Amino acid sequence: MEEPLASSFPIGKLAILLAVLQEHEWKKVVEQELDSRDFRYTIGRVGAMDMIKVVAAIETAAKNNHIIDGNSYREVHSLYHAIIETMQSIGRGIVQFGDILRTVGLTFAIVRGKRSGAAQMEGEWIAVCAYGTIGAPKKGFEHEAIGFGFNHI
Amino acid sequence: MEEPLASSFPIGKLAILLAVLQEHEWKKVVEQELDSRDFRYTIGRVGAMDMIKVVAAIETAAKNNHIIDGNSYREVHSLYHAIIETMQSIGRGIVQFGDILRTVGLTFAIVRGKRSGAAQMEGEWIAVCAYGTIGAPKKGFEHEAIGFGFNHI
Amino acid sequence: MEEPLASSFPIGKLAILLAVLQEHEWKKVVEQELDSRDFRYTIGRVGAMDMIKVVAAIETAAKNNHIIDGNSYREVHSLYHAIIETMQSIGRGIVQFGDILRTVGLTFAIVRGKRSGAAQMEGEWIAVCAYGTIGAPKKGFEHEAIGFGFNHI
Amino acid sequence: MEEPLASSFPIGKLAILLAVLQEHEWKKVVEQELDSRDFRYTIGRVGAMDMIKVVAAIETAAKNNHIIDGNSYREVHSLYHAIIETMQSIGRGIVQFGDILRTVGLTFAIVRGKRSGAAQMEGEWIAVCAYGTIGAPKKGFEHEAIGFGFNHI
Amino acid sequence: MEEPLASSFPIGKLAILLAVLQEHEWKKVVEQELDSRDFRYTIGRVGAMDMIKVVAAIETAAKNNHIIDGNSYREVHSLYHAIIETMQSIGRGIVQFGDILRTVGLTFAIVRGKRSGAAQMEGEWIAVCAYGTIGAPKKGFEHEAIGFGFNHI
Amino acid sequence: MEEPLASSFPIGKLAILLAVLQEHEWKKVVEQELDSRDFRYTIGRVGAMDMIKVVAAIETAAKNNHIIDGNSYREVHSLYHAIIETMQSIGRGIVQFGDILRTVGLTFAIVRGKRSGAAQMEGEWIAVCAYGTIGAPKKGFEHEAIGFGFNHI
Repeated sequence: MEEPLASSFPIGKLAILLAVLQEHEWKKVVEQELDSRDFRYTIGRVGAMDMIKVVAAIETAAKNNHIIDGNSYREVHSLYHAIIETMQSIGRGIVQFGDILRTVGLTFAIVRGKRSGAAQMEGEWIAVCAYGTIGAPKKGFEHEAIGFGFNHI
Repeated sequence: MEEPLASSFPIGKLAILLAVLQEHEWKKVVEQELDSRDFRYTIGRVGAMDMIKVVAAIETAAKNNHIIDGNSYREVHSLYHAIIETMQSIGRGIVQFGDILRTVGLTFAIVRGKRSGAAQMEGEWIAVCAYGTIGAPKKGFEHEAIGFGFNHI
Repeated sequence: MEEPLASSFPIGKLAILLAVLQEHEWKKVVEQELDSRDFRYTIGRVGAMDMIKVVAAIETAAKNNHIIDGNSYREVHSLYHAIIETMQSIGRGIVQFGDILRTVGLTFAIVRGKRSGAAQMEGEWIAVCAYGTIGAPKKGFEHEAIGFGFNHI
Repeated sequence: MEEPLASSFPIGKLAILLAVLQEHEWKKVVEQELDSRDFRYTIGRVGAMDMIKVVAAIETAAKNNHIIDGNSYREVHSLYHAIIETMQSIGRGIVQFGDILRTVGLTFAIVRGKRSGAAQMEGEWIAVCAYGTIGAPKKGFEHEAIGFGFNHI
Repeated sequence: MEEPLASSFPIGKLAILLAVLQEHEWKKVVEQELDSRDFRYTIGRVGAMDMIKVVAAIETAAKNNHIIDGNSYREVHSLYHAIIETMQSIGRGIVQFGDILRTVGLTFAIVRGKRSGAAQMEGEWIAVCAYGTIGAPKKGFEHEAIGFGFNHI
Repeated sequence: MEEPLASSFPIGKLAILLAVLQEHEWKKVVEQELDSRDFRYTIGRVGAMDMIKVVAAIETAAKNNHIIDGNSYREVHSLYHAIIETMQSIGRGIVQFGDILRTVGLTFAIVRGKRSGAAQMEGEWIAVCAYGTIGAPKKGFEHEAIGFGFNHI
């Protein structure tokens, strides 16, 4: 039987677990928690040498799964900066993949909703997390990386 | 009863979960997994406006808990770069905290051991993950962040 | 007699002109335009070697002059990122002043309001512009610089 | 009737106004000021996803309009660094456009001449300013940005 | 007659001299020193606008000349970070060449071996140095640059 | 007997050799070459955790040894950017020392003069090179680094 998550798990932690747990059964607990608290979320995968493909894949997933309204520039702007923060976070100082011969294989999660506690009154926020591998474009010659971005929406 | 982790959880994911789960009971499962696979690991906390304090806290915890040999420059060099990657990852493009009026409150995990699968023959690696909050030096005016660094040791 | 501005001057351009024009009489035209379109705005000055003082001066001016609600983390978060963008923009690749022996003398403007045209329906945005000098901490050994940040609020 | 500019408007401010004012009538006053003080200047436009096109457009405009001598590496070197500063200033921390799915539409001004006051004896300087929009490659999904670079020539 | 080098020349200095001296006769003294101390080393040349070609050229030279074992991810990972440090060092703040209209013509040296003195017990390290020109893609419109990276292997 | 340098050694290479060779006898050959070609140059040393001290030490040495005219902002501006490039080059992506618990011990060389060949007509340039160690503030826990900056003056 799955155990409920502590209700205090904040939105960012839920996004991180969603991206990291992948097929592990704990993921269902995280999804139940997200559902019960009316968060909007989606999970996707992308593998690429071109950063533009990674940015576009996350943006498209957010629009197609109605995490954001693709016709609202405010929402697109908020998501875009959260994605760029995620890329900066994965890249650790260099916002480039293919240009420096790196390729990434990422599972990403996007979560949108209210923050917990007193901050609950403060409207919605968006968290993006991407977890996977970064490395040479050759199987096995890569290691894990995680990126995370957060913004008000 | 706690369920065993999929044995394929790689070293980086274990470090991420250790930093993120904090007091949640899943953490015990992660620790059992780490123990059963002979990983060395430690968890610590640090809150600071000065990045130098965060770097020093992680380095000291790694030495005091025998994750690395503090008398070996090779090991210190490897850890240091993993810590700096973690700081770059948390900072998302700016490797500064106090200078730009940001303060951090972080739980960090350091894990050292062999990689899974074919990479097992390849000696040891070190993963550093720090999870917590970044924001204004005023309670509640902060949001979540995660940083991650990885190196061969 | 002062001539009215083209009503299409967008919010960012108004912030830039406010920071740049200083005591020139065109500034009054810009202020009339801002008043007539119900923008909230303020102007301030700061001179410092420590970036933290510049960030704090802009943030404090925004709160004290009710450009943002200092009790709302959403608004503080939005302003903070606009300020950091302004610092990155002034620094041109290095987000440091005193650490590399640079001092700044800046006039800054903060403008908050709706965007023009179709984007008008999209709620409010905030623009920060800082214009002045950057250089050695010695009179005359400095040159002009301008920084600009923009965010949804 | 157009009012004369305060004669103390420094070279950088003139470049900023030239780029920002575009078709507004104040621009004529700025141009008169530039002419009366024997500054060399030019204005151009460029829209692109590739930063290389923006850099090349500004460089070409400076050469074709005799702001710099394209056969002098000193002058090309000076201009080049002013352009790169402009790009860093627009990009606010990331010197990339298309790679991260951003497109720019810019009006740029290049001004070359002596500085005012005591600094007048110190030979010529070059100021580059680019003002316009940065955003998604989709109309309306962009916001204002300004970049500025300055160098001795 | 060639004079022997001071035996205290550390590994990084040997890599720098190897890249910088090129056809000068002092280079032979450096090579004798490297041979006598059982260092592995190689020299190569690369000219490109694409950073990916520079990274690949150095990596390929290291593998083909058996400076590293191309089948060991540990060794590839160590070399890769030393190369990226070299690129960051050459680029001085911007890790891009062609994207900002710069081309490079580089001689690079890779040296692997033990450090001198007490550090000798600490296993092997790898030093990468690239020296040459960076500039516009037009002959004569470029100037010298040097980059250097260092890692434990 | 010392052998003359190939007369084609460009200004940057001379600065690099001056900083790297230190007490080795080849240094005299480099100095003779610099003297015979009417270059102005100086060598200094600085050890510090604060980048501001390194920047100030190089700037002061250049002024005190008449490499530049400290009363000319043009010359100070040119040198300053060459120093900052040197710092970026040493730091490899992070322009910070003490803030991230790094200390440096550097020998620096500043060379000013004309370039060789066709570029000779193009006035003077300045090259800054700093070579030494970077690492933890603990003896032996550091490794070599080199930084280089170049500018027209």
